[in-house]
Amino acid sequence: MPVSRSLSHIAVTVATGLVAALVAVTACFAQSDPLPSWSDGAAKKAIVDFVQVTTTQGSPQFVPPEARVAAFDQDGTLWVEQPMYSQIIYCLDRVPALVKAKPELAKVEPFKTVLSGNREAIAKLPMTEIEKILFATLTGMPVETFNAEVRKWLVEAKDPRWKRPYTELTYVPMQELMKYLRANGYKTYIVTGGGIDFVRQYSEATYGIPPEQVIGTAAGVKYGYAKDGKPFLTKEPKLLLNDNNAGKPEGIHLMIGRRPVAAFGNSTGDREMLEYTKAGDGARLAMLILHDDATREYAYGPAKGMRNTKVGTFTQALYDEALKNGWTVVSMKDDWKRIFAFEP
Amino acid sequence: MPVSRSLSHIAVTVATGLVAALVAVTACFAQSDPLPSWSDGAAKKAIVDFVQVTTTQGSPQFVPPEARVAAFDQDGTLWVEQPMYSQIIYCLDRVPALVKAKPELAKVEPFKTVLSGNREAIAKLPMTEIEKILFATLTGMPVETFNAEVRKWLVEAKDPRWKRPYTELTYVPMQELMKYLRANGYKTYIVTGGGIDFVRQYSEATYGIPPEQVIGTAAGVKYGYAKDGKPFLTKEPKLLLNDNNAGKPEGIHLMIGRRPVAAFGNSTGDREMLEYTKAGDGARLAMLILHDDATREYAYGPAKGMRNTKVGTFTQALYDEALKNGWTVVSMKDDWKRIFAFEP
Repeated sequence: MPVSRSLSHIAVTVATGLVAALVAVTACFAQSDPLPSWSDGAAKKAIVDFVQVTTTQGSPQFVPPEARVAAFDQDGTLWVEQPMYSQIIYCLDRVPALVKAKPELAKVEPFKTVLSGNREAIAKLPMTEIEKILFATLTGMPVETFNAEVRKWLVEAKDPRWKRPYTELTYVPMQELMKYLRANGYKTYIVTGGGIDFVRQYSEATYGIPPEQVIGTAAGVKYGYAKDGKPFLTKEPKLLLNDNNAGKPEGIHLMIGRRPVAAFGNSTGDREMLEYTKAGDGARLAMLILHDDATREYAYGPAKGMRNTKVGTFTQALYDEALKNGWTVVSMKDDWKRIFAFEP
Repeated sequence: MPVSRSLSHIAVTVATGLVAALVAVTACFAQSDPLPSWSDGAAKKAIVDFVQVTTTQGSPQFVPPEARVAAFDQDGTLWVEQPMYSQIIYCLDRVPALVKAKPELAKVEPFKTVLSGNREAIAKLPMTEIEKILFATLTGMPVETFNAEVRKWLVEAKDPRWKRPYTELTYVPMQELMKYLRANGYKTYIVTGGGIDFVRQYSEATYGIPPEQVIGTAAGVKYGYAKDGKPFLTKEPKLLLNDNNAGKPEGIHLMIGRRPVAAFGNSTGDREMLEYTKAGDGARLAMLILHDDATREYAYGPAKGMRNTKVGTFTQALYDEALKNGWTVVSMKDDWKRIFAFEP
């Protein structure tokens, strides 16, 4: 190598080294507080301590990278669930198109009530009637048709309170938490009572969670052939997995085959997932988000003066179990400096 | 920075650069033939061409990393399935322990026949009777108990022909293929008619495939509590997913939520998975392994003189569909220089 080329090679190499050093320094600063939206307190400390003891080589509670599984409930844990789960709103929004395709439904309950637009009457529909709407709007079509409909709705629909797409109603502190866990080798999973196919349409863009890391309530699909011989899958009105309560650990076993090391929820539907996570050996992190901030979000749950709700029920019994078993209860009001990315 | 420190820093940086260059060169050499056990021919060329067009930036058939999903059948595709699927042998081997725990079964068919040790009679048991054995030995116990039993068996049991543990009966060319795909950003999945919990006990050690990337025939599990209040999952005699035939694309949709770009099988049970894979846009790779080497392994399938079998059935119709749809049929005899790692 001629001296001039050799020198220029050294210069380039040194420059590369400097850039690498700069990147390392920047990363160091960035890592100094991976959870900037979390107030200093017990919840934040529990998270940071958990990550340190499970990812530090030589720590007695070290968890090998392949076993680092963290499970997140979605509704009420990663994004807003009040006054009604987004997927239910999607299903109600689909009813007019459904009736257009099947006009005979216009005079049949519960479709008649939904079409009336009477919000109070709709809110009073019993779960068995809501289920009819779910099956009618979530099944019976090819998977690709359903996916396209959901994606279109996600762009167009807006939450009435914040006048923003539902995918913007995610909690910044939880986004930081998921990134922090992933930066430390954790695989983040959504384990939701919501529909697996529904959530998979936005999980990657909204949470950085790919479809194969979404576990949810699942209807079966049926393989068949179109007229041109091309195979396709149809969503069937057959419940395969009810991913709520005991269905959460059962779904985790089916889809992951490993017990999570950390789990996050906010309601009685997450109880068994947190118990199952906590029952494993070594360090475990179990957290419940408490919605106690009526000003910035909503207030519902077990505390005095908070209202009861069928959407994201958080009973006193759940609160007691959390305290007894060393689960961390996160106060949105006190533990989160910021809730939404769009806050001023 | 003093000149001496500065120079030593340059020296270190240059040395680091040289090491990086050496690593790159070594990697280059290592990549020169990623499939050394494959003979040069149409099958090997199809694989290498597929990987190149789907992973080269700017290629019209480029597949983004997150969509690189490759699905592998297990029995007969990744390891030996003759004369009987390993999991069936496991179930038969479990019968004595089962009868010891429930002595009343000793006089009941099909357990009586299995206990007799009469191989001909056992081989003649109809599928409905075999299913009774499967349910009795694969369900009814806590997940952890089952896992421990399978792991113990895997260490102790030996294939009668090769006198080796079943996990050694994997095909080296397929191991190379999976490594080659993974080195090119593909996520490799097992999509097996075998039991999901069974295969997950060895998939990571045997194939480098973690449990969450195993899809298989699945029985439900049931969440419950032990006497000490600790939660655990019990394997239930309830079929959740029959991961054969149409069940394979259905299972893929449930567990991955993406259509594979490449799929590998060896029997009619893989037909729908290969059709589904091929029906997607862009470059697709669909392969069927043909067992045509009676000397080194077994010969069964559609060709003249090959025997028919219910284990890994490869019909003439499947062969015709493969030719018509551009699937590659891999001849074990001609395309594989080496089959097993233990060959001299």
